Amino acid sequence: MNPLYEQMKTSVFERMSLLAAKHGAVNLGQGFPDFGWPDEVLEAATRALIEASNQYPPSRGLPALREAIAGHYERQQGLDLKPDHVCVTSGATEALGAAILATVEPGDEVVIFTPAYDSYAPMIRRGGAVPREVALQPPGWRIERDALKAAITPRTRAIMVNNPHNPTGRLFDLQELQTIADVAREHDLIVISDEVWEHVLLGGAQFTPLFAFPGMAERTIKIGSAGKIFSLTGWKVGWTISAPALAGVLARAHQFLTFATAPNLQTAVAFGLSEGDDWLSPMRDRFTRARNRMAGALSDAGYVVLPSAATYFLCVDLKASGIDLDDEAFATAAVERAGVAVVPLSAFAEQESSRHLVRLCFGKRDETIDAGVAAMARAK
Amino acid sequence: MNPLYEQMKTSVFERMSLLAAKHGAVNLGQGFPDFGWPDEVLEAATRALIEASNQYPPSRGLPALREAIAGHYERQQGLDLKPDHVCVTSGATEALGAAILATVEPGDEVVIFTPAYDSYAPMIRRGGAVPREVALQPPGWRIERDALKAAITPRTRAIMVNNPHNPTGRLFDLQELQTIADVAREHDLIVISDEVWEHVLLGGAQFTPLFAFPGMAERTIKIGSAGKIFSLTGWKVGWTISAPALAGVLARAHQFLTFATAPNLQTAVAFGLSEGDDWLSPMRDRFTRARNRMAGALSDAGYVVLPSAATYFLCVDLKASGIDLDDEAFATAAVERAGVAVVPLSAFAEQESSRHLVRLCFGKRDETIDAGVAAMARAK
Ligand SMILES: CSCCC(=O)C(=O)O
Ligand SMILES: CSCCC(=O)C(=O)O
Repeated sequence: MNPLYEQMKTSVFERMSLLAAKHGAVNLGQGFPDFGWPDEVLEAATRALIEASNQYPPSRGLPALREAIAGHYERQQGLDLKPDHVCVTSGATEALGAAILATVEPGDEVVIFTPAYDSYAPMIRRGGAVPREVALQPPGWRIERDALKAAITPRTRAIMVNNPHNPTGRLFDLQELQTIADVAREHDLIVISDEVWEHVLLGGAQFTPLFAFPGMAERTIKIGSAGKIFSLTGWKVGWTISAPALAGVLARAHQFLTFATAPNLQTAVAFGLSEGDDWLSPMRDRFTRARNRMAGALSDAGYVVLPSAATYFLCVDLKASGIDLDDEAFATAAVERAGVAVVPLSAFAEQESSRHLVRLCFGKRDETIDAGVAAMARAK
Repeated sequence: MNPLYEQMKTSVFERMSLLAAKHGAVNLGQGFPDFGWPDEVLEAATRALIEASNQYPPSRGLPALREAIAGHYERQQGLDLKPDHVCVTSGATEALGAAILATVEPGDEVVIFTPAYDSYAPMIRRGGAVPREVALQPPGWRIERDALKAAITPRTRAIMVNNPHNPTGRLFDLQELQTIADVAREHDLIVISDEVWEHVLLGGAQFTPLFAFPGMAERTIKIGSAGKIFSLTGWKVGWTISAPALAGVLARAHQFLTFATAPNLQTAVAFGLSEGDDWLSPMRDRFTRARNRMAGALSDAGYVVLPSAATYFLCVDLKASGIDLDDEAFATAAVERAGVAVVPLSAFAEQESSRHLVRLCFGKRDETIDAGVAAMARAK
């Protein structure tokens, strides 16, 4: 078998969720909410199951969904999109896979910022390319122009960035995004911009897509996720947004990864996106309250919490909280003995990584948050 | 962008379906039925949408589905399986992709029998390996020991086989399967056995999985599809079956392709597979009647039809039917002018290929078959 997969570990999210189930622990590890999905969207999915076709939809997505996605980004982010910019995928993980496999060739390099989502580096390697890690430094996690430029070589083909950023909860500012845009243009690079958290903005934070920067529409592959937008992470409906010429290439990578995505789920997402955006602001308020509740309670329990402006994650600084264990040891003890699953940040980098930070998911009901923080207090 | 995808064409199935829609043609191209899905399975999917979790299921599949799949193959094919043999994927196309990416390394060769499903060769190439085509010859499409052995080199890593065989409708016999097993054992090869059509057996045909041959359970990756079993091709629920050690490697390839598959669809498939197998025989009768109807009417219209023992496809021999066009020219004329979409068999091979055969999908209601054959009569 291929040695990459023989030596690979199970994804940290899966690993922590299985451990949480095994030990009956509160699961604040893997990122999924336990509230917040719109009933109307569920009902649209049930209607489509019964009333519409359950046979292969078009590989690039149902026309209604591609229209709805284009319209959504026009309203929300001022992007001028047509359905031709959209390729629907079976979740953002597939979108990332298709984007990487479609972009790189053996010998290429791809710059990623660590901590990075755990599929990036393995898929880059499986595509025959080499991931070049630019390690962002806590607690600021800033993208620095010099560090980025130092990572570029003649073999660099692409930059991958996740904004808003999982696991840190950072929203990169306009200056940092401009840095990426400048470097990408200067070196003629593709940018794979994983923006799945674009709507999970906290405390009034504002998001700008890389696609909107001058010269970037032609070289950016934007990745979005209905699972994050509608708090339905199991649906695995995602998409790529790119210039139509790139979209055609992406569609050909996608057609041999999954070919298509369940039409009833696509119809329901199209319905949800077409209903207007009034639900966005209550959703953000709800996640902001959840963040505040968890951050406050963790701090009451003696934990030092790093700021989080987006996503439903926050990070705890173990060292600053007076805990001597490294992140992996703490996570293991927390799930096995204290009854709470968290994610060690060292799982988000292969090379340089801080070992004193763990990530908690706060996209949970009050009871879940309270039970999780009570367990965190026991873990101290 | 990666030149493989830049130069690749859109899948022939997608291409013909889009042309069928554009020209208002009867779509006998892409393989999907227009009848036959069990209402109870649809209802199970709607119940699970409303009553159960829509968040990430385990990456390898819901335990209930993995149990149900193992139990199904125990009853149907006498295989001794545990849930640990199973990895659920977002359709059989993903299962094929995961199996290929997990198996091969750059420089490897993979033997495929052509005509072959159109994702095999591109995914083998994207995995860094080289597809070695063994061209089966019409009208018998037999796997010959000498031809297979001649394709094996020291770099051969795997054999891919599709049984029952799309697009020919052939069910390979025990002797042909034994040939594959012998060669695989002798050269220590993995066999990726795409058995998605295992239940679509016509006129009393009997199927034996490669997994059941002595020495094959440890080296076979069997691929199955709920879409084919329940005539719900759009659901994109598939799986791999393999020895647990291989399954772990496959699961790691799968986790970064799609991570997981919609839990409500998994629950419904688990429900369907657990309801017993009484539906199999009426399903086969129905497809057999549909095959007979289409084959008879095509023959009445002056077409020479090749035998089909499984799948919902049959092939028409254009040359023997007195048609001078090659398959691609005929398919284009048929969809544009006669109003029926079919699939040219040359799309199933990169190298040697017959150019006088087209494939028709007969998994259709009587009206659809009659309208399609009437259009075929016009295409003559
Ligand atoms: C696909 S499981 C990972 C989900 C997620 O976004 C996270 O926990 O970071
Ligand atoms: C995923 S589209 C192809 C469906 C199919 O099995 C066929 O038409 O051969």
